[in-house]
Amino acid sequence: MSLLIVVPNRDMTKLQALLSDALPEITIEVWPNIQDPLKVEFVLAWNPPKNLWCNLPNIKAVSSFGAGVDGLIKHEPLPNVPVARIVDPKLANDMALYVLGQVLNFKLRLNEFQVKQQQKLWQPRRAHQTSKVGILGLGQLGQQTAELLNINGFEVSGWSRSEKNIKNINCYHGDDGLTEMAKSSDYLICLLPLTAQTKGILNYDLFQHLPNHACIINVARGEHLIEKDLLKALDNNEILGAILDVFQTEPLPQDHKFWLHPRIICTPHTSALTSINTIVEQISTNYGLMAKGESLINLIDAQLGY
Amino acid sequence: MSLLIVVPNRDMTKLQALLSDALPEITIEVWPNIQDPLKVEFVLAWNPPKNLWCNLPNIKAVSSFGAGVDGLIKHEPLPNVPVARIVDPKLANDMALYVLGQVLNFKLRLNEFQVKQQQKLWQPRRAHQTSKVGILGLGQLGQQTAELLNINGFEVSGWSRSEKNIKNINCYHGDDGLTEMAKSSDYLICLLPLTAQTKGILNYDLFQHLPNHACIINVARGEHLIEKDLLKALDNNEILGAILDVFQTEPLPQDHKFWLHPRIICTPHTSALTSINTIVEQISTNYGLMAKGESLINLIDAQLGY
Repeated sequence: MSLLIVVPNRDMTKLQALLSDALPEITIEVWPNIQDPLKVEFVLAWNPPKNLWCNLPNIKAVSSFGAGVDGLIKHEPLPNVPVARIVDPKLANDMALYVLGQVLNFKLRLNEFQVKQQQKLWQPRRAHQTSKVGILGLGQLGQQTAELLNINGFEVSGWSRSEKNIKNINCYHGDDGLTEMAKSSDYLICLLPLTAQTKGILNYDLFQHLPNHACIINVARGEHLIEKDLLKALDNNEILGAILDVFQTEPLPQDHKFWLHPRIICTPHTSALTSINTIVEQISTNYGLMAKGESLINLIDAQLGY
Repeated sequence: MSLLIVVPNRDMTKLQALLSDALPEITIEVWPNIQDPLKVEFVLAWNPPKNLWCNLPNIKAVSSFGAGVDGLIKHEPLPNVPVARIVDPKLANDMALYVLGQVLNFKLRLNEFQVKQQQKLWQPRRAHQTSKVGILGLGQLGQQTAELLNINGFEVSGWSRSEKNIKNINCYHGDDGLTEMAKSSDYLICLLPLTAQTKGILNYDLFQHLPNHACIINVARGEHLIEKDLLKALDNNEILGAILDVFQTEPLPQDHKFWLHPRIICTPHTSALTSINTIVEQISTNYGLMAKGESLINLIDAQLGY
């Protein structure tokens, strides 16, 4: 029996070794090096290639390599087996801290001062007097980020697909709620799962509802943002800046306009990295549960897509 | 009767106008334009020139232009009249937020990523796993900064001249306490008042007690830091970085090594700016109290120097 890792373009040597130690009774293989496709029972995948599933007729379970499953369904639907994701309890904490750090960076103009320093320019400026945050997505990441911003003195609103009622958050939902929240958001933070409904939600229409001193922070998925719409809104001074940790294509291509845009801050998808130990632990647990015919932990809802 | 503003090298036009509105019964003058030195009763000063006080024989009170009074005593002692300072209630809040922002900036490597972005380099790195903060100075600024870092998950120690006991802070004092705290500080933050005892406290001796992944943050006064000692400690990899908002000479001279040092972040003394409205309010109040022969608010202790 074997467990197959399918994460193209990333070095999986260390993960393979750690999983081999954790599950000595089975073979841990890394795609595309598969001894016998018929023996593969469990697949850990991100961005799998086309026609993977039809060549693995005996799989009993799949796990996403990340917190989302959008990376599993880019090319074709998921196979008809239980699908789990990695839930790192530290992830929401790391994400909240990253968002707080970037909000303060923008508010206190620390990015601006760093550019001035390189030019040896001493130009004091007062911090932005902005403290209203709108969060798109009120799942675990959204709620923990909201809470952290709240205890740091920010006024937090949140938007979700369905109606929610959460302490210390002005909750909005639905299309009207989205534009309503945008109107009073100095910072608009995307923490949504990527689904057919949320793809492209950060678009020119939405940007026009934001105050023109607004800053957009996308830490969810590159596909949430219509990239050309962001450039248009910045160039028209309809918004002030953007902070992006995720992109339609990663790594960001060398000729991409975001790299050198003076009002876009880019980080290389580092806002919240799942620890390798968490992956090993949860995959071992789920492999064991699958082998015993029991229900996996951290299963996704195939209908909702997350 | 007149109130004299003595703040060389800064434009005081707006403050003069606002004080004239607030105190219509007296003349508001800006040094060096003084009609009659004998009529000056109240002086609002920062970095006053030599021989100022002996030419103003009728002054009854002095106010510092800032939260400290070190800017008043660089050249000669204070005159023998009550001396007040500006206490901006928002200042401690702003200071704490600035320190939190810079600590997160360093921890999350946001500065590093900004430099990489300019070079179009996609190089993900995990955040520093550092969370121990040592704060020098446990006055209002130090305590509020400690509290904010604490609620954001940092483990906070603090050092003060005299023994203190403050909730959620590991309190140290004295020379031994200083080196003891340094040993376990991932971030060492200077929020001390500038006195003969604290001048040069950020020196090579102290740096050698810090872990070599440590980051120094100076938001107090440039004179707290021996600048060549910082360069030596960085070059010897005895500490990892420094974030400085204050300098021995401000603006930082064009040929200063700090400007382009890859591991020093400089901001132009913006960590906490006293609002002009607060100055007008407190100076008006103190002028009124002086005129009535009553005790001023926010008086300093001449013995302690703050």
